[in-house]
Amino acid sequence: MNPFLALAFAEADAAASRGEVPVGAVVVRNQVVLAQAGNRVEELADPTAHAEILALRAAAAAVGEPRLVGCDLWVTLEPCPMCAAAISLARIRRLHFSAYDPKGGGVDHGPRVFDHPTCNHRPEVVGGLEEQMGGQLLKAFFRDKR
Amino acid sequence: MNPFLALAFAEADAAASRGEVPVGAVVVRNQVVLAQAGNRVEELADPTAHAEILALRAAAAAVGEPRLVGCDLWVTLEPCPMCAAAISLARIRRLHFSAYDPKGGGVDHGPRVFDHPTCNHRPEVVGGLEEQMGGQLLKAFFRDKR
Repeated sequence: MNPFLALAFAEADAAASRGEVPVGAVVVRNQVVLAQAGNRVEELADPTAHAEILALRAAAAAVGEPRLVGCDLWVTLEPCPMCAAAISLARIRRLHFSAYDPKGGGVDHGPRVFDHPTCNHRPEVVGGLEEQMGGQLLKAFFRDKR
Repeated sequence: MNPFLALAFAEADAAASRGEVPVGAVVVRNQVVLAQAGNRVEELADPTAHAEILALRAAAAAVGEPRLVGCDLWVTLEPCPMCAAAISLARIRRLHFSAYDPKGGGVDHGPRVFDHPTCNHRPEVVGGLEEQMGGQLLKAFFRDKR
């Protein structure tokens, strides 16, 4: 498995162990990890604290500006519409994600955030990486919740 | 003018004076202001630091949970797709905004984030309040920038 995706999966596992929906994200530039994060919505009492948002914010803080030119994002799940739009605003170059999310995704499902003429920046998108693993992680989490 | 919208406009003016795109947002519950914020993308080097996101996060921190049940949001501009999706995730009851934003809006334009079956929570939406004022604020800002 790609090492950055593996790191994102480790963040997702850590999120699950905190009782959060297991999603992890990693921002990479020039093969260097700028930021990595897992979902912390419940812990932080923050509706926007998805893994992607936390990773984008941390990476932007690290480089000192709001546009992450030349950066790539690795995520364990298809980003939701909020995260997809944030990815566009942050000028992420390439988005890689594992499982597709027909219920909550906003890239290839629902509002398909990048597929509108008003979307100012559309990253390259590579979806479905290690898809089984990404899907099982979520399924196991929600099965244990019931 | 509604006093909460007036407060949002004051936040937008303050954002403009900081050199930020002038947008302001206010979260209200039971006629009490829980949080107010203006855009701080450049200042914070945070691509997600739109007025709505900052106000939602502050309100959620104030109530100590990620879902803002029974809360309303007042914004000076039609929210972008990121903010619209965050508003849905935060369970905002009613969204009021001033100017429509055909280029960047995500509620009545572009991906129309609330208008998909996968959108789990659709707030009531009231758009176009004091629309001229909302539109002029943005126009003046971008005119001065050129």
